[in-house]
Amino acid sequence: MNSFGVKFRFTTFGESHGKAIGCIVDGVPAGLKIDEEFIQSELDKRRPGQNSLTTARKEADRVEILSGVFEGVSTGTPIAMVIFNRDQKSRDYSNIKDIFRPSHADFTYWHKYGIRDYRGGGRSSARETASRVAAGAIAKLILREFNIEIESAIIEIGGAEVDNVDFEYAKESIIRCGDREKEQELIKIIESAKAKHDSVGGAILVRAKGVPIGLGEPVYYKLDSKIADALMSINGAKAVEIGAGIESARLKGSQNNDQISKNGFLTNNSGGILGGISNGDEITAKVWFKPTPSIFQEQQSIDFTAMRFNLTCKDATTHVCIRGSTVC
Amino acid sequence: MNSFGVKFRFTTFGESHGKAIGCIVDGVPAGLKIDEEFIQSELDKRRPGQNSLTTARKEADRVEILSGVFEGVSTGTPIAMVIFNRDQKSRDYSNIKDIFRPSHADFTYWHKYGIRDYRGGGRSSARETASRVAAGAIAKLILREFNIEIESAIIEIGGAEVDNVDFEYAKESIIRCGDREKEQELIKIIESAKAKHDSVGGAILVRAKGVPIGLGEPVYYKLDSKIADALMSINGAKAVEIGAGIESARLKGSQNNDQISKNGFLTNNSGGILGGISNGDEITAKVWFKPTPSIFQEQQSIDFTAMRFNLTCKDATTHVCIRGSTVC
Amino acid sequence: MNSFGVKFRFTTFGESHGKAIGCIVDGVPAGLKIDEEFIQSELDKRRPGQNSLTTARKEADRVEILSGVFEGVSTGTPIAMVIFNRDQKSRDYSNIKDIFRPSHADFTYWHKYGIRDYRGGGRSSARETASRVAAGAIAKLILREFNIEIESAIIEIGGAEVDNVDFEYAKESIIRCGDREKEQELIKIIESAKAKHDSVGGAILVRAKGVPIGLGEPVYYKLDSKIADALMSINGAKAVEIGAGIESARLKGSQNNDQISKNGFLTNNSGGILGGISNGDEITAKVWFKPTPSIFQEQQSIDFTAMRFNLTCKDATTHVCIRGSTVC
Amino acid sequence: MNSFGVKFRFTTFGESHGKAIGCIVDGVPAGLKIDEEFIQSELDKRRPGQNSLTTARKEADRVEILSGVFEGVSTGTPIAMVIFNRDQKSRDYSNIKDIFRPSHADFTYWHKYGIRDYRGGGRSSARETASRVAAGAIAKLILREFNIEIESAIIEIGGAEVDNVDFEYAKESIIRCGDREKEQELIKIIESAKAKHDSVGGAILVRAKGVPIGLGEPVYYKLDSKIADALMSINGAKAVEIGAGIESARLKGSQNNDQISKNGFLTNNSGGILGGISNGDEITAKVWFKPTPSIFQEQQSIDFTAMRFNLTCKDATTHVCIRGSTVC
Repeated sequence: MNSFGVKFRFTTFGESHGKAIGCIVDGVPAGLKIDEEFIQSELDKRRPGQNSLTTARKEADRVEILSGVFEGVSTGTPIAMVIFNRDQKSRDYSNIKDIFRPSHADFTYWHKYGIRDYRGGGRSSARETASRVAAGAIAKLILREFNIEIESAIIEIGGAEVDNVDFEYAKESIIRCGDREKEQELIKIIESAKAKHDSVGGAILVRAKGVPIGLGEPVYYKLDSKIADALMSINGAKAVEIGAGIESARLKGSQNNDQISKNGFLTNNSGGILGGISNGDEITAKVWFKPTPSIFQEQQSIDFTAMRFNLTCKDATTHVCIRGSTVC
Repeated sequence: MNSFGVKFRFTTFGESHGKAIGCIVDGVPAGLKIDEEFIQSELDKRRPGQNSLTTARKEADRVEILSGVFEGVSTGTPIAMVIFNRDQKSRDYSNIKDIFRPSHADFTYWHKYGIRDYRGGGRSSARETASRVAAGAIAKLILREFNIEIESAIIEIGGAEVDNVDFEYAKESIIRCGDREKEQELIKIIESAKAKHDSVGGAILVRAKGVPIGLGEPVYYKLDSKIADALMSINGAKAVEIGAGIESARLKGSQNNDQISKNGFLTNNSGGILGGISNGDEITAKVWFKPTPSIFQEQQSIDFTAMRFNLTCKDATTHVCIRGSTVC
Repeated sequence: MNSFGVKFRFTTFGESHGKAIGCIVDGVPAGLKIDEEFIQSELDKRRPGQNSLTTARKEADRVEILSGVFEGVSTGTPIAMVIFNRDQKSRDYSNIKDIFRPSHADFTYWHKYGIRDYRGGGRSSARETASRVAAGAIAKLILREFNIEIESAIIEIGGAEVDNVDFEYAKESIIRCGDREKEQELIKIIESAKAKHDSVGGAILVRAKGVPIGLGEPVYYKLDSKIADALMSINGAKAVEIGAGIESARLKGSQNNDQISKNGFLTNNSGGILGGISNGDEITAKVWFKPTPSIFQEQQSIDFTAMRFNLTCKDATTHVCIRGSTVC
Repeated sequence: MNSFGVKFRFTTFGESHGKAIGCIVDGVPAGLKIDEEFIQSELDKRRPGQNSLTTARKEADRVEILSGVFEGVSTGTPIAMVIFNRDQKSRDYSNIKDIFRPSHADFTYWHKYGIRDYRGGGRSSARETASRVAAGAIAKLILREFNIEIESAIIEIGGAEVDNVDFEYAKESIIRCGDREKEQELIKIIESAKAKHDSVGGAILVRAKGVPIGLGEPVYYKLDSKIADALMSINGAKAVEIGAGIESARLKGSQNNDQISKNGFLTNNSGGILGGISNGDEITAKVWFKPTPSIFQEQQSIDFTAMRFNLTCKDATTHVCIRGSTVC
């Protein structure tokens, strides 16, 4: 169950502290120019440690293409990509190695698999998202041929919303914030939480431009349900909205309906999707992330032998959750 | 793409004004008592026209099992169920038959398939959900064997929230409202919208009790991402939250983390899912529906020949969106 | 696991002595003229009881389309078809009702599902193939648009091979035999076996004309491996050959290679498939069926309570295995 | 479409002359001891160049596990394996680089993908099978836990059959031949073909011991149809038989039926499968391979510019097709 998609389908592998992570991308048409620098630049955007605010770990991820590309062009065969983990040594987790960290996946992984990799998050680590960023970069190269562009921006941190969303600005923002005016406020919220050994959550707005009418298959492969599926599979995601989302549910039908003129839709509350099928307008979705559970504070927990209770657990480092556009 | 699920997999068929709708349910273990009355009662709960508030159409849906059951017990072979459409005559849609109704799927279906079934919503009609209610009833019979129970309640209508959620009360509430105190207020909101030929949206809280630890497969078949996939595929759904959802994103990590005692989790902000895997606590999710777009008001639209613009469109009847627990 | 195919995908249901059998066909493009008479005529070709040689049971199968077709044209939504079992009464199986019939699926079904439908073959009955004939008829209607034609003929019965294969003649042959000269000989073999309360097996040659170059996906969705998958899933199939099949394995490379001229391939030992992809030549495959195990002779068996052994088992009727082109 | 399987699912990548080949194996349960030496030994058995008879190329394939294993034990996460191609330099193909080699996949790949990797067979090369051998080795480790063993032996080369099949002897035979007496005869057939710059085909018998009753899912995931699917996807496979296969089709029902005593089945013509479900007896299947098309003889062909016809084509080396148990 480590694959996503049907025609374009990728399968990922790798743990945070194993030898390597990576993916196989199946269904890439032959003849596509594979721009390796672009793939690398997408990974660089994801990389933690780009600023003083986020996770300290420096992951100098270098992606290597192992197959499916010949003389710079896709051959129609599966494209395998691998990122070797430069630093496989784990932090000193000895203080927490047999305690479940509150709201961490270590609790469920241990119960499901009966195995504990004390080196770190393993497969549940946000590091897995590097593989999907690599696969997503290939997807973007295909979409580019159809003039479809996907952009994203941070729109809320720790309860503070932006006023405007400028996707261009988000690309240069240190925290991928879509609002130049609000950026400093959001940064302060992060710094303040960090100073208190705490973490904050937030939200990202994603927009796809140039999507033709007709994508999405009723009724169990709707475009919106597959977007929800994809976004909710990202580590820490707790909510997904399409178009106006929850706001739509609070409007009257007469207010929410996107009326149509000869020049197109007058509004886009539907987020570019009607009946599960793209309507030619911009696709918009929001995804909401919980604060990273790894905090350096005392918390009540139990150990995995279930023999000691009411332990307190302090995580080894402080994280905040703003690693760019597609990952938490 | 009319199938959902892997081990338990159902495939639905049927249009709102065709001969019949129904489904094939694959993966039901042999030896399960198939309680036909229960399946019928689930469909009865879904049925519009149960009160003066919702769609007028009376659909006396009778489900018929065609296969997979022998002497009241499942045989391990696929269970086909069919519901014949008693009244295949469509309303008089002549006034709108060549105009796209704002925020309706007729726009995208026409562009994707090039065919217009002027009789009604066809496959995009909420009537399709009757098939999944039938399949869901079989699923509930399986889950019952494991003492897993799924309940739901209306928690918001037209922007008015309930204060408390009583799943037991919701079962008898005329609008499946989970709050006896608030019920009349919500009903008034619906009646008021209806009087103005308008419609309202709302939200439903779903809860699964008794789910064991370990369900869900990382990383692309997470329990939460599949719940999001399923809920977002329901007609009119615009947002899905898991556990505390958006509220989680506004809490600090120290507030949001579900600490653990020997008696279990102290809170359940995670909605019973960690790392995509059930943690043994109650699974909770919210799904938000837009107001039904079918309103009897003048709205701007175009016709599907794209030759007449700026038409106004009044839908033939007034709908509001509260058809029970699983459908819009 | 009652579905076949990816883009064009059908799911079947129904037991031999239940209420109905049928299927849902997903992935049919919109705008296709659905010729119901053609579908019915395909089913009529499959029907047992057309002559004195085959199974006596008369199944006047009438297919009914429940969805996916509007005014004679496909709408892009799933096409459900149902065939009600006119005569649900089973034969008198009392003499064998608790004995496993040698080489019948009742042995494995009972062990896998723990349930015995004493009325007949249930899901393992060749009657299930009626559903795939109906789905196949829709497939043929699609292929017809691309001038792709699929034909078949009996080429061997009870060890006696035909000399020539005339697909046109097979259509009118009482036993779908592709060789007018040999037909009587094959019929005599069947009659002789029948007189001795025995059964015979045989082989069918299938040919697809007009298939363009390029169908089939390496390396686990090869055209030949999916043909093998499909043909081997038919009741009683024991071998599948592609092109020259086993004969190829006995030739030298220099003899077996299909050399190429400007007019095309000089031979077609490959059966129109190279590297799992169609090469533009005719696709040919052979499928071999065992004799039906239902014979009215004494055979050693055990009962399913596993308490009586060395019973003898006589099946209630005599069958031979020549039910037309796609089924056993 | 480079994946195979559902619960146990592997996805392969890599071309014969690219950087690496490999696979991701999904669905391996946690807690399985992963014996790397066993995986390597399986690959060593596959390796060409082990004797003077087969392809000269020496591929010192070293498999490397990148994920899914921690301290020698599977973790339940996907196991990625990679085999770097030591010698990426291709042979001098200049004499054939723009001519389609008769009965080679280069014809169909070029037409499907529009790309020609002149370095060699690429994805259609038998080298791809190394990836499935690696995945198959993991599968064998799982099956070993259930005392299920899979063995195979060459039973025919160039039209000469073995008389007996001794799976133990096949393991030490230089050509995996299951008959010590016949081995030299088969070797001579290969040497003789090789001396004439020609190639020969053959057949392999596969046997699974210890398979419990009940594996296989009716009706489109039958055990026999999936075995046929798998075996036919191997390069050069042209026929698959289950149990007695074609011989069954030539027997009477009374001869072919596997009668049952209290000690089990009296015969095993069915090859251990009834109604698509394992019956507890040994599973047996035969797969037939065509002679490798790469021969150093003049053959008629065309070039891929379709501008020169009636060229002659000599392949650069001589191959014979006996690379062990699972590959051609």
